[in-house]
Amino acid sequence: MALILSDTPAAVAATFTTNQVRAATVRLDAARLAAFGTAHGIVVNSGQANACTGKAGAADAAEEARAAADAVGCAEEMMWVASTGRIGVRLEMDKIRAGIAALAKALSPDGGEDAAAAILTTDTRPKRRTATWKAGGKTCRLTGIAKGSGMIAPNMATMLAFLVTDAAIDRRAMQKALRQAVAGSFNCISVDGDTSTNDTVMLLANGRAGNPVLKPGSDGWEGFAAALGAVAGALAEDMARDGEGAKKLVRLRVTGAKSAADAKEAVRSVGESFLVKTSWVGTYPNWGRIMDAIGYSKAKVDETRVSIAYDGIKAVEGGIATGVKQNRLEKVLAKSEFAIDIDLGLGRGEAYLLACDCTEEYVGINKV
Amino acid sequence: MALILSDTPAAVAATFTTNQVRAATVRLDAARLAAFGTAHGIVVNSGQANACTGKAGAADAAEEARAAADAVGCAEEMMWVASTGRIGVRLEMDKIRAGIAALAKALSPDGGEDAAAAILTTDTRPKRRTATWKAGGKTCRLTGIAKGSGMIAPNMATMLAFLVTDAAIDRRAMQKALRQAVAGSFNCISVDGDTSTNDTVMLLANGRAGNPVLKPGSDGWEGFAAALGAVAGALAEDMARDGEGAKKLVRLRVTGAKSAADAKEAVRSVGESFLVKTSWVGTYPNWGRIMDAIGYSKAKVDETRVSIAYDGIKAVEGGIATGVKQNRLEKVLAKSEFAIDIDLGLGRGEAYLLACDCTEEYVGINKV
Repeated sequence: MALILSDTPAAVAATFTTNQVRAATVRLDAARLAAFGTAHGIVVNSGQANACTGKAGAADAAEEARAAADAVGCAEEMMWVASTGRIGVRLEMDKIRAGIAALAKALSPDGGEDAAAAILTTDTRPKRRTATWKAGGKTCRLTGIAKGSGMIAPNMATMLAFLVTDAAIDRRAMQKALRQAVAGSFNCISVDGDTSTNDTVMLLANGRAGNPVLKPGSDGWEGFAAALGAVAGALAEDMARDGEGAKKLVRLRVTGAKSAADAKEAVRSVGESFLVKTSWVGTYPNWGRIMDAIGYSKAKVDETRVSIAYDGIKAVEGGIATGVKQNRLEKVLAKSEFAIDIDLGLGRGEAYLLACDCTEEYVGINKV
Repeated sequence: MALILSDTPAAVAATFTTNQVRAATVRLDAARLAAFGTAHGIVVNSGQANACTGKAGAADAAEEARAAADAVGCAEEMMWVASTGRIGVRLEMDKIRAGIAALAKALSPDGGEDAAAAILTTDTRPKRRTATWKAGGKTCRLTGIAKGSGMIAPNMATMLAFLVTDAAIDRRAMQKALRQAVAGSFNCISVDGDTSTNDTVMLLANGRAGNPVLKPGSDGWEGFAAALGAVAGALAEDMARDGEGAKKLVRLRVTGAKSAADAKEAVRSVGESFLVKTSWVGTYPNWGRIMDAIGYSKAKVDETRVSIAYDGIKAVEGGIATGVKQNRLEKVLAKSEFAIDIDLGLGRGEAYLLACDCTEEYVGINKV
């Protein structure tokens, strides 16, 4: 468990899973965001997702928030909640209450690393990133922690990310900026194509830096947007790199699609094809499976116009092999990070996806 | 390689992959189907898919057909072709020519078992099924052979199926009947969600049984439709059971969807979720992952109306756990075949999918 606390009430921006099945915690937070959008803190547990737990689960989530609010002395509705773990299992409320009591005693301004570790499930390492910028003569700081690492697909993931900043920021502008940052970071990851019931990204801004309230156009807004983009982007890469069982991070880009929507369909079809993802496990430059995956995607494809490059080395041109030596491609696939660029040759649509390989370990992790 | 030959010209019905990237052989056969729709034979090779091979690949496919036609003494355009194997690799024409010569010498009325074995790739066993029926006082027979076993998804698969019958059947009616049979069989399989470039189902009817030409309403039409459905259905089950690395066959059914289209979206989302498929590897009745998968599908879902049963044992009712003992569900999941019924509780839409588990062996097979 983790307890994230702001000294003073903080403005909140948040985005949640697009899954129609939503955890009790997500429903509670979404209601709070719609109603007032400020928070003193967030209490997070890992182990049970508190999804598919019905009315009892909703009561548990409210009780978790109430207990944490009581422990730190804030109003109940100023405490937000997030859960991750098994779906369909009730929270173990005795443990939750004991955990909250312990956390409230251990609160520390240097607790970020501990919090980053506390929210993990099958992740192999904590994920924490920081950026600073200047606003109205003041130095502002933004720090984020996140967890992955399976059930991850575009439109969020089994992922939680909590971003906090001491800057003062206009709440509406901040919500818009967060949506934009999420679109370019967390929504560009795919581990296994499954979108979870619990995905949550929250950004708390408490204004302790003393800067004038930021909104588009004000001094420091661009710095904030850049810091937000950098922290979200870095956390998203950390997540993809730490995908369940993953050994390789692959930067997939589709260009030349008829439209941006087509590019998204094509890049997702490739990045979520298990035949493509398993071919990355070895050093097997099987571009035929990429051709296959774009061909059955909803994107318009004319195979005679497709080209495919591995780290800039063209393997396919006009839909057929360029004749490049297999061992040059194998060297690329042997790396722990590489890029695949797919040009559909039909228009100007572009899309990007951070993907990872699908290993035997992924199956091993998820079969139990 | 296999060579399937009819003594006399046979009427052909066929369905092909919906992938926009189509093998040279598929394009050749589709043109023949559109132009005249009769065949003396089919020559099949496994090893190279002859997809993404450009104009050279198209010439190779035509040459393969010509060589086979010459070897058996029929007109070139009466010989159809099918390929399966690696995408992007040219046919090894020397081997193809030598293979055709050897096959033409070895032709036998009892060669069905050999042909069923010859067309396999990563399949572990041949697939062959037969049915008979009466038409106008004559006994008719229908036999099919097929191959799976990876890159398999609804709307066909890396799958080839060749069905032959000695019945006389009206060609247009036969094409319609084949489409219907494929929709209820081969299009209900999913091994890994990948639709291949080479999928082909062909039905040849040469009329040697001597029955009056069958069409809807004639004596024996119902028998034919039933035989076709039975053979196609059995071959489809054989394929799902022999999915790459698969140990378990799972009959997924979604009922109560708002529409048939919604039911299809939901059943496919569940059957293609790697988190669901890996949970079947163990004996892990993780219905939470099923809730998650229907929730992110395009089907309308109200989680409070969902129920899920494993071989008739209700695990979920109204979106939450029924409290049934975990070990009762584990017993179902330990079986090599079981059914999962998902009722969305919203309407009358239904859909069915034959799925299999995703094992470490699947990854092992496809990473090289």
